[in-house]
Amino acid sequence: MKSMCDYINRTPQTVENLVRHIEEDSEAFVRKMLERMPSAIYLVGSGTSLNAAYLAQHAMEKVLSIPCFVYPAMTFTDTVHTVVENSCVIGISQAGRSSSTMQALDHARALGCMSVAVSSEEHALIREHADVFLPVRMPLEDIGPKTEGCYCTVVTLVLSMMEVSEKSGRGCREINHKMKQEMLACIDHLPQIVDSTWKWCEEHGEKLSLYDNIIVVGYGDCIPAALEGALKILETVRCCIRSYETEEFMHGIYHSIDRNTMVISIGNAQRHFDRAKRLLSWLKQVKGAYTIMVTGQRTDSDDDFIYPFSEYEFFPAFEYLAFFQTLAQHMAEYRGIDYEAQGDPGFHKTMGSYVYE
Amino acid sequence: MKSMCDYINRTPQTVENLVRHIEEDSEAFVRKMLERMPSAIYLVGSGTSLNAAYLAQHAMEKVLSIPCFVYPAMTFTDTVHTVVENSCVIGISQAGRSSSTMQALDHARALGCMSVAVSSEEHALIREHADVFLPVRMPLEDIGPKTEGCYCTVVTLVLSMMEVSEKSGRGCREINHKMKQEMLACIDHLPQIVDSTWKWCEEHGEKLSLYDNIIVVGYGDCIPAALEGALKILETVRCCIRSYETEEFMHGIYHSIDRNTMVISIGNAQRHFDRAKRLLSWLKQVKGAYTIMVTGQRTDSDDDFIYPFSEYEFFPAFEYLAFFQTLAQHMAEYRGIDYEAQGDPGFHKTMGSYVYE
Repeated sequence: MKSMCDYINRTPQTVENLVRHIEEDSEAFVRKMLERMPSAIYLVGSGTSLNAAYLAQHAMEKVLSIPCFVYPAMTFTDTVHTVVENSCVIGISQAGRSSSTMQALDHARALGCMSVAVSSEEHALIREHADVFLPVRMPLEDIGPKTEGCYCTVVTLVLSMMEVSEKSGRGCREINHKMKQEMLACIDHLPQIVDSTWKWCEEHGEKLSLYDNIIVVGYGDCIPAALEGALKILETVRCCIRSYETEEFMHGIYHSIDRNTMVISIGNAQRHFDRAKRLLSWLKQVKGAYTIMVTGQRTDSDDDFIYPFSEYEFFPAFEYLAFFQTLAQHMAEYRGIDYEAQGDPGFHKTMGSYVYE
Repeated sequence: MKSMCDYINRTPQTVENLVRHIEEDSEAFVRKMLERMPSAIYLVGSGTSLNAAYLAQHAMEKVLSIPCFVYPAMTFTDTVHTVVENSCVIGISQAGRSSSTMQALDHARALGCMSVAVSSEEHALIREHADVFLPVRMPLEDIGPKTEGCYCTVVTLVLSMMEVSEKSGRGCREINHKMKQEMLACIDHLPQIVDSTWKWCEEHGEKLSLYDNIIVVGYGDCIPAALEGALKILETVRCCIRSYETEEFMHGIYHSIDRNTMVISIGNAQRHFDRAKRLLSWLKQVKGAYTIMVTGQRTDSDDDFIYPFSEYEFFPAFEYLAFFQTLAQHMAEYRGIDYEAQGDPGFHKTMGSYVYE
C-alpha cells in the first residue's frame, strides 16, 4: 500500500502525463466556455477539493481576467441565491461521490449558471449534475488523506483556463507561459521537499509529538497551503488543529495560545514575512508557545524549517503544502496512528455525505 | 464596568435609536450608491467585523439583488486583483482602527472600486481611506469581546441597503418590510435569550468547565453564528475552539473527535436539522464526545439547550448568536478567567495591526 508521501512523489510523473493530454481532456469545457464566456466563476467543493479550489482561484482569474469565487459546496447551495449574471459554477469532487457538490451543481443550474463537474473518476456520478465534465487525468489515489489529487486538480483547472485563453485570444500569452512554467517547476520540486521535510521530522519528531494543540498560520498566496496543510494533519494525527490567515489570527485568536500550543507559520517571501517573524517571537517569549517557521529566509531559531523554496510569483503554495503533507504522515507514524483505519466505515452512509451507486 | 451580557441587553434600545436616525446617517452612502449602482459588493473586515459581514451578506444581496462577497480584509488586499466591474467595497471596523481594513479600502480604490468605511467611531481614522463614511450609531462599547457592535453593524448595513432600495425603486417593498420586521424582532428577543441561556449555564456549568477542546458547527443561515459564537468563546475562555459548516465537518474533521471534545451544534429549523441530530448522536455514541444541540426543536438529550427560537426567514442567526455570547461570558466567569486582562497590552502596537493617532 502506498503512503501519502508515495503519492506526492508520484505527482510529477502524473502531471507530465496530464499536461500531454490536457487539450483533448479540456475540449468539452473549452467549447462551452467559448460559447458562454462567463462573467464570473464560482468554484465549489468540500474538504481537500475545496482547498484545491482556493489553490487555483487567483491563478484562474488572472488567466482570463474573470473574477473567481470559492464556496464550500453546501454553503453555496444553502445561502447563495444571487449570483453575478452569466456565471459558471465548477463543482470539484476528486472521487466524484460528494453529495454536497452534486447539490451545489443542481443549485447552479437552477440559478441559470453554466455548470462544470471536475473529477478524477471517468464514470463519476457527479457528471450527471453538470453541463460539462472536466476530467482530472490521474491513476487511482487509493488512500484517505489525498495529496496527489489536490495538485492534479489545480493543474487541470489552470491549464484548462489557459486553453480557453489560447482559443479565445483573451488573456496574455506571456503571463500564461510564465504561470505554466512555474506551476510545473513547483510540481517537479515536490519530491525534494518531501525528502528534506522527512529528514527534518526525524530530528524534531520527539518535540513534535508533545503537542495536541496545533495552529497553522499563513498569509497572501500561501493561505490555501495553511488550510490544506492543517486539514492533512487533522486527517492523520486527529488532534486539535486550526488554521488562520495571519492577520485574522491577530484579531482575537492569539489570546488562546499557551505553552501547550504549537504554532507553525508559513514564511513565504511576501510582504508579511517580518510581521510573521515578530508574531512567532512574541508567541514564544510571552506565551511560551513552541513555534516553527517554514521558510526560505534566514531565521535565528533552530526549530525552524529552512529550505530553498523557489518563491516564484505563481503557486508558491504548492511547495509549502508538501512540507505539511509530509509532516502529517511523519507525525501520525511517530504517534503510531493508523490514519487509514476507520472508526466507523459507515459514517458517510449514515450521514448521506457521499452518494453510492 | 459592563459585561458582555450587559451590552447584549442594551442592544434593543441602541437599535431603536439607530433605526430612528438611519435615514440621515446613511444619506452620503445612499447618494453614492444611487450614483454608481454597483454590480457587486465586497464586504471586508477582521475578527468580529468580518463575522458581522457574514451575518449581513445574504440579506444585503436580497434587498437590491446585487451579489455580495465577503473577504477577510488582509486576504482581500493580498490576493484579490480581479473584481467584478463597477464594484463597491465596504470596509468594516467597529473601532475604526483596524490597519488591515484601511489597507483593503486603499486597495479597493486602486482597483477602481467605490469605497465605503463603516465604523461606530465618528472620528475614525478609517474615514480617510474611503469615498463615503457610513456611521454605526451606538454608544461606546467599552469591552474587548464585542457583542452589541456586531448586531448594530449588521442592522446599519441592511437598513442602509433598504434606503437605497427605497430611493432607487429597485427591490421589493414587501420583502424589505418583512426583513426589517423580523430583524428588529430578533433584536428585541435578545435579552430573553441571554436570560434563559444564563439559567441553562448555571445548571450545566460544571460539565461545561471540563472541556478545553470545543467545536461549534452550524449550517445554512446560521453558519455566521457558529463562526462568531466560536470567536467569542475563544476571546473569553481562550481554549482550543473551532467552528465549521456542518458538511465540511463531515469531510475529514470528524476524525479528530474524542471523549475530551465538546461539540455544540446549532439546530435551526432548516433542512439539515435531522442530519445534524444524527451527527451528534454518532459523535456521542461512537466517539464518546459531549454534545449539545442548541435548538427550538424537541430532542431526546438532557444536555441540549431547547428554546422557542423565532425561526424567522431572516436573521435566525441573531438569536442563536446570543446563546453563544452568553455562554462565553458564563464559561469564562466559571473558570475564573478575566477576559479583559491583557497578557500584553502592546500586542497590536508591536504587530502594527491597529493604527493609533
